[in-house]
Amino acid sequence: MARVRVHNMSMSLDGYAAGPDQSQEHPLGVGGERLHEWMFRTSFGRDMLGTDGGSTAVDDDWVRRGDDGIGATVMGRNMFGPVRGEWPDESWTGWWGDEPPFGHPVFVVTRFGRPSVAMLGGTTFHFVTDGLPAALEQAGAAAEGADVRIGGGVSIVREALREGLVDEIHVTVVPTVLGGGERLFDEVGSWPDGYSCTETAAGDSVVHLRLERA
Amino acid sequence: MARVRVHNMSMSLDGYAAGPDQSQEHPLGVGGERLHEWMFRTSFGRDMLGTDGGSTAVDDDWVRRGDDGIGATVMGRNMFGPVRGEWPDESWTGWWGDEPPFGHPVFVVTRFGRPSVAMLGGTTFHFVTDGLPAALEQAGAAAEGADVRIGGGVSIVREALREGLVDEIHVTVVPTVLGGGERLFDEVGSWPDGYSCTETAAGDSVVHLRLERA
Repeated sequence: MARVRVHNMSMSLDGYAAGPDQSQEHPLGVGGERLHEWMFRTSFGRDMLGTDGGSTAVDDDWVRRGDDGIGATVMGRNMFGPVRGEWPDESWTGWWGDEPPFGHPVFVVTRFGRPSVAMLGGTTFHFVTDGLPAALEQAGAAAEGADVRIGGGVSIVREALREGLVDEIHVTVVPTVLGGGERLFDEVGSWPDGYSCTETAAGDSVVHLRLERA
Repeated sequence: MARVRVHNMSMSLDGYAAGPDQSQEHPLGVGGERLHEWMFRTSFGRDMLGTDGGSTAVDDDWVRRGDDGIGATVMGRNMFGPVRGEWPDESWTGWWGDEPPFGHPVFVVTRFGRPSVAMLGGTTFHFVTDGLPAALEQAGAAAEGADVRIGGGVSIVREALREGLVDEIHVTVVPTVLGGGERLFDEVGSWPDGYSCTETAAGDSVVHLRLERA
């Protein structure tokens, strides 16, 4: 059975994993970029930007582990794009250009269906209209024995935690304060009952925690 | 000039440094004890409880640093005790018994004055009725060249951050979710502008961050 994993969930000291007022201009919410700066200082992050260099130390290890052994990704519609309501057409194919960095099937949870889209580099976007558990089931089958990652955004991770659907989560605490936005651990019910912290790490001005189902 | 330092501020993943419904029975709020368990697993914490053993590793180092070079403590009235409003008498002398662990002058910020109380072991409680800046000034003088610690509770730390009165703060993130209580970093204005994260550390299932005024 595929494990369901969440990685690199960057959170401010006041608990926000996205800033307020998400839009096409501010996909992470206003100020939300600050949460991901640590990632773009790593070698892996620099690769994503198409540039060289970057740290290969602790933070880089944690970023890379978010890809290890992942065979499919599930994400919420807000992570896929800024379009709300019915799809006006099929022109929006994600934030990531013609060749998204996934390289595997991606299942987008949405109330509005549309045909699957095959992108360059092995990524195919599928649109699942019957909820997160169904998306995880389809992703588990598509992953062919590998694990499934919930990529985000914040609200779908929160739903997954609350419903006990997550086997492990890696949280990165970033020493900033956003003052508003989407909180990662609000309304997660009795979580983390039944989980334990199995790993901690000190990065370059961020810290990492890993919690796993016991 | 004395530095103003905050140490061992334990915070849940959802940002609470105290649980809801503080009372004499639950001085840290309901569930708030969970935030401090890591401390009582250290050698320093065991000493406080009057028992032996405990870890002498990373967490213990961070706890001990909270005492190093401190000459006076400032605290809010809620940290001093559960009494609200006018003091009915002078019988309440803190949560810590006849010999509190401070061993130096402690300045309690309150709207209601009362005479200073000298305890065993070098702790004297003074009651300051003209606000936090005045308390810090008196504490700075009493510390005789050593640093001043703001001990808590949560609301006075928040006020000190918002007003730019803190030179450094050590936050410990505990992998639990309280779901309610007092949030450490709500309404801190533009903080941490002008501060930087100067140290991170991985403890035994908690993580530590230190932020200092740049």
